[in-house]
Amino acid sequence: MKFNTFLLFLFIAITFLFLFARNHPPFAPPPDVIALLDCAPDSPSPWCIRLQSNKPPHVSDTPNHPLDPLTIKEINMVRSILSSHALFNSSNPYAFHSIDLEEPHKEQVIQWTKADPLPPRLASVVARVDGHSHLFTVNLETTQVTVHNTVPRSGYPTLTFEDLTSTIWAPLSNAEFNRTITNRGVDLADLACLPMSLGWYGKKEEGRRLIKIGCYSKKDTPNFYMRPIEGLIVLLDMDTKEVLEISDQGRNIPIPKAANTDYRYAAQQQKLNLVNPISIEQPKGPSFVVEDEHLVKWANWEFHLKADPRAGVIISRAKVRDPDTGEMRNVMYKGFTSELFVPYMDPTDAWYFKTYLDAGEYGFGLQAMSLDPLNDCPKNAYYMDAVFAAADGKPYVQPNMICVYESYSGDIGWRHTESPITGMEVTLVVRMAASVANYDYIVDWEFQTDGLIRVKVGLSGILMVKGTKYENMRQVPEQENLYGTLLSENVIGVIHDHYVGFYLDMDIDGSDNSFVKVNIKRQDTSPGESPRKSYLKAVRNVAKTEKDAQIQLKLYDPSEFHVINPTKKTRIGNPVGYKVVPAATAASLLDHDDPPQKRAAFTNNQIWVTPYNRSEQWAGGLFTYQSHGEDTLAVWSERDRPIENKDIVVWYTLGFHHIPCQEDFPIMPTVSASFDLKPVNFFERNPILGVPPNFE
Amino acid sequence: MKFNTFLLFLFIAITFLFLFARNHPPFAPPPDVIALLDCAPDSPSPWCIRLQSNKPPHVSDTPNHPLDPLTIKEINMVRSILSSHALFNSSNPYAFHSIDLEEPHKEQVIQWTKADPLPPRLASVVARVDGHSHLFTVNLETTQVTVHNTVPRSGYPTLTFEDLTSTIWAPLSNAEFNRTITNRGVDLADLACLPMSLGWYGKKEEGRRLIKIGCYSKKDTPNFYMRPIEGLIVLLDMDTKEVLEISDQGRNIPIPKAANTDYRYAAQQQKLNLVNPISIEQPKGPSFVVEDEHLVKWANWEFHLKADPRAGVIISRAKVRDPDTGEMRNVMYKGFTSELFVPYMDPTDAWYFKTYLDAGEYGFGLQAMSLDPLNDCPKNAYYMDAVFAAADGKPYVQPNMICVYESYSGDIGWRHTESPITGMEVTLVVRMAASVANYDYIVDWEFQTDGLIRVKVGLSGILMVKGTKYENMRQVPEQENLYGTLLSENVIGVIHDHYVGFYLDMDIDGSDNSFVKVNIKRQDTSPGESPRKSYLKAVRNVAKTEKDAQIQLKLYDPSEFHVINPTKKTRIGNPVGYKVVPAATAASLLDHDDPPQKRAAFTNNQIWVTPYNRSEQWAGGLFTYQSHGEDTLAVWSERDRPIENKDIVVWYTLGFHHIPCQEDFPIMPTVSASFDLKPVNFFERNPILGVPPNFE
Repeated sequence: MKFNTFLLFLFIAITFLFLFARNHPPFAPPPDVIALLDCAPDSPSPWCIRLQSNKPPHVSDTPNHPLDPLTIKEINMVRSILSSHALFNSSNPYAFHSIDLEEPHKEQVIQWTKADPLPPRLASVVARVDGHSHLFTVNLETTQVTVHNTVPRSGYPTLTFEDLTSTIWAPLSNAEFNRTITNRGVDLADLACLPMSLGWYGKKEEGRRLIKIGCYSKKDTPNFYMRPIEGLIVLLDMDTKEVLEISDQGRNIPIPKAANTDYRYAAQQQKLNLVNPISIEQPKGPSFVVEDEHLVKWANWEFHLKADPRAGVIISRAKVRDPDTGEMRNVMYKGFTSELFVPYMDPTDAWYFKTYLDAGEYGFGLQAMSLDPLNDCPKNAYYMDAVFAAADGKPYVQPNMICVYESYSGDIGWRHTESPITGMEVTLVVRMAASVANYDYIVDWEFQTDGLIRVKVGLSGILMVKGTKYENMRQVPEQENLYGTLLSENVIGVIHDHYVGFYLDMDIDGSDNSFVKVNIKRQDTSPGESPRKSYLKAVRNVAKTEKDAQIQLKLYDPSEFHVINPTKKTRIGNPVGYKVVPAATAASLLDHDDPPQKRAAFTNNQIWVTPYNRSEQWAGGLFTYQSHGEDTLAVWSERDRPIENKDIVVWYTLGFHHIPCQEDFPIMPTVSASFDLKPVNFFERNPILGVPPNFE
Repeated sequence: MKFNTFLLFLFIAITFLFLFARNHPPFAPPPDVIALLDCAPDSPSPWCIRLQSNKPPHVSDTPNHPLDPLTIKEINMVRSILSSHALFNSSNPYAFHSIDLEEPHKEQVIQWTKADPLPPRLASVVARVDGHSHLFTVNLETTQVTVHNTVPRSGYPTLTFEDLTSTIWAPLSNAEFNRTITNRGVDLADLACLPMSLGWYGKKEEGRRLIKIGCYSKKDTPNFYMRPIEGLIVLLDMDTKEVLEISDQGRNIPIPKAANTDYRYAAQQQKLNLVNPISIEQPKGPSFVVEDEHLVKWANWEFHLKADPRAGVIISRAKVRDPDTGEMRNVMYKGFTSELFVPYMDPTDAWYFKTYLDAGEYGFGLQAMSLDPLNDCPKNAYYMDAVFAAADGKPYVQPNMICVYESYSGDIGWRHTESPITGMEVTLVVRMAASVANYDYIVDWEFQTDGLIRVKVGLSGILMVKGTKYENMRQVPEQENLYGTLLSENVIGVIHDHYVGFYLDMDIDGSDNSFVKVNIKRQDTSPGESPRKSYLKAVRNVAKTEKDAQIQLKLYDPSEFHVINPTKKTRIGNPVGYKVVPAATAASLLDHDDPPQKRAAFTNNQIWVTPYNRSEQWAGGLFTYQSHGEDTLAVWSERDRPIENKDIVVWYTLGFHHIPCQEDFPIMPTVSASFDLKPVNFFERNPILGVPPNFE
């Protein structure tokens, strides 16, 4: 969580430098950072060679599908069209916060076939002009620009890289700030700062775009996150770069000198060759193809796959083949990560505001990093690039942002012993990894041949830690709340939660579906009815309106959650459906009136169902930054609209509580959780019996 | 789960025939079953060739470790010693229900080193002699036999194969039974019957060993489970083979004629070649070794592994290497599947009693089947045989009962983007699969290099279904409770639960440990304290006595569950520990006074902690069959003994609710759930940073 400091920015910068020399942005990485990445221009490291390699530059890409993302040409066209628009024509300062495909209406997409021309290509543009946020639709065919009068009551658009990079060093122009750093014994040359979204905590913070800056010492370590200048927070106006406030409440806290902060292999004293080489081999190559850049076809599945600056990965039009009819059947119109929420559990001055909404504030896709072959994805993986727009409206390529591969872990797909009948499970995985500053999120969409989709989130990376005067738990008075765990000398890992909210527009054999809560209830028997006193019974409740579908999971009041097509039955009369299958998760326990919880109110429930509405895609609201929580999933759902036999969207929130432990220092092993979308009476019978057993 | 019919019995029989021709049991498989298994003696099928292959017959095995299971020689010695014992010397009928190693006392095992001689080898024997259950210890050195006067107030020992096979056909000697079958239109030649444990439902069923028999038609299908002769249940005295009662309440229900019941690949009309060949390759071979038959060493782990007739797989003395000191540190003294509970949710006459305790009633290890290479376990797997004792006391080999392999699914062990630092996860998997009749359980113990142990249970196999007159849901009156889902014409999949209870004798750096509930609680801020209204705080509660550690999981009152060594601290003063990390699970909702729930009261909580006691290993009691629930984990825990800083055992119950759906017909795709044992301040820091990144 938190923003990916100058390192990320520089990573992008380096990418720019190598790939888009002609679109050279107005900054250059300091040489020490290049050294840090081991990526001097002549570096022999495979990582650097990959970065420098000649990826297809995408300049001649054309869209092939109504849902294909904007191409480089199209983004350039948007910029050119808008440059002649009155708003951008003046000398007013402006910045593009998002230039993204405005997807055609659902019916258009559903009706479209490959033989048809594409529907008109539209761009959805979020820009700030002269201190005001605007939402435009740009028609690339007609060049028409529509300005939407949907200025939100609160909130600002997603930060641009320029917002982040320009604010990091702004405090250095403030003499008091420089004195403070020097007083802490930190050489200004060792300074590393992070721009942190500040949430919203009342009037004082309204009416202007603000950001908070926290700083670290990178002396003697690449892992400056472990060297916080504790208690120092600078409040900055992002538009004027003015320092509004310097809060320095940590003067008595030393910069941690904890050893072993370097996580790089070269720095490890103990080199561990624990296992022999191992790889997944496919002598005939992978079994999937990616047609027209975005259409993935594998086994009995096909879906459209693209990168998105805000959502990261978007899966659309997911269809599975019916083994009996051969027909490709609709399962999900669109699925993606809608919002994240990462509240830290420390109410003190330098920490209370750390309650990040990563997708809306920073852009989950913008923070997604190039995947490292063999380490982030196994052999035979296919890599997909992203094309995004910078703040000046110029397109750039984020290489290898998504990978697609087949996984085979040795899990058994099904078995029964009476005959040698079993099948080993091969799954298709779509992966991205976002480093939102210190934290790394790995999002996997896994497709199984039995029709199951597993959505898995892995957390790794570096903890956001707090400096402390304590070097040993012995020194801590019993009643003192550390707000976390002492991880090393002077370093506390602060307790925090992670929530990842998914948008799941399920279309089971068509758009109009119903949500059915199949409640598992104890039924006591009547006297004399049975030697048993009790048994469990499934009670089906069709959700009529949104409030019927606000679900908090309970182990002792369990349910299945079916999305069914009420108008389509199986041969023997069960409605066809898919179920949302929660697994390990965590619920937010914060006060619903606490400002961060209001803004992240999508975490008030684990499941929600809303009627499909083009404008309701972002669970924390379209303009999330400094928002007050007026445009969230929770607000929409309170309208309690009818959802029975309608085009519905299911929202699932996956949660983690994280009490850090020493094993998370200086970088944490991956923790994963998942949920499933699983056929339930969707197929007439087990769809994978025809898969042959394995022989040598 | 029910018992594994004649097919299983015949599978065993075939194994016997091929491997132990000289120990030929008193039965022979009918030719049609050999054909069914495609395993005629001259069959070219790899499955059959494996069965017929010359596995090392284990006749010269000797024990190398105090925990090594009894060898063939030792089992023969037990039989020989007991044959001269007064009880077996008479002409009274007897049967051995279990001949298993009586493990040496913990201290002896812990102190033992490879240079030492083995402690005296003892056998624990459960036998029925002249209608009475006995528990013996046989000392193989001194030949001394100790008879334990621990006859339980209720319950009988685990069924023997002979109990099962001899009861299946017993009803055929009853004319009324034969008439009933014929009246149902089933040819006696098509009859397939299952012996089903009947639980305990009161006085009528006390004082003698009873079993219930349910029957099926195997006409036109190998999957007779889908052709129940619904409502017909025979109550049988197991010792006299007397038919006590024939209940036939299903005369109006046809034998289901549902199509597509055959699950074998050869029978599938749709052959699905969905994916190209894929395999896990290890050019230098696996990274683990198995020393002295039972000691597994892999990466930073070592543990003792053996098969057990009741528990299935037993992992002992699991130790992980500390990367800093190089020392092998104790994590778990012993871990195994202690009991299963599978209640069906139908209170009617032919179903109410189906509330199986599979381990205690049938023997989870006895039901474990030979694993099929490439289909049950991937390439490079190592297979371990089991040596068990039959009812006559003769040893036999269950080949390939356990496999050990390395898994590499492409999951990321840890990552951070600022430098190309990530590690792909390779895990070691120990697997067994038990077919308890229709159901298949797959139990995996997965070891990770970061110190995590994941225990995963997969469910597959065939549903226990119920016949019905309905062919379509249209025909079902709205108010009628089917007790399940219509899966195909005339076939209902009855709702049921699965619970798998694990015994986890954790010894974190020594035997004396404490159990700490780290409760995550909302803390409201005081007025003026913070702009935040609330945050979460970790509150540590050390469990003093057993009742403090009876845990029901709550999403909205979450905790971490640490097993710590209170006398050993990390460098910075945190107690070293492991935590039990629950994931998706289900809780039993049955009335605590319902007879099946009393017998399976280990499912009343998800976690329990007891002080170590040699005699408390089986959560459903030592003599589970027809038990009244007087010797269960719940009863022991109610003693509320002290557990702080003591040698403690953690019990975890993993649960599944299963509302069947059509995809489960005629055989279900695997459903899995797991829990983790995870280091928490056990290591000073992330123990896997020294693992090198992957390069081609």
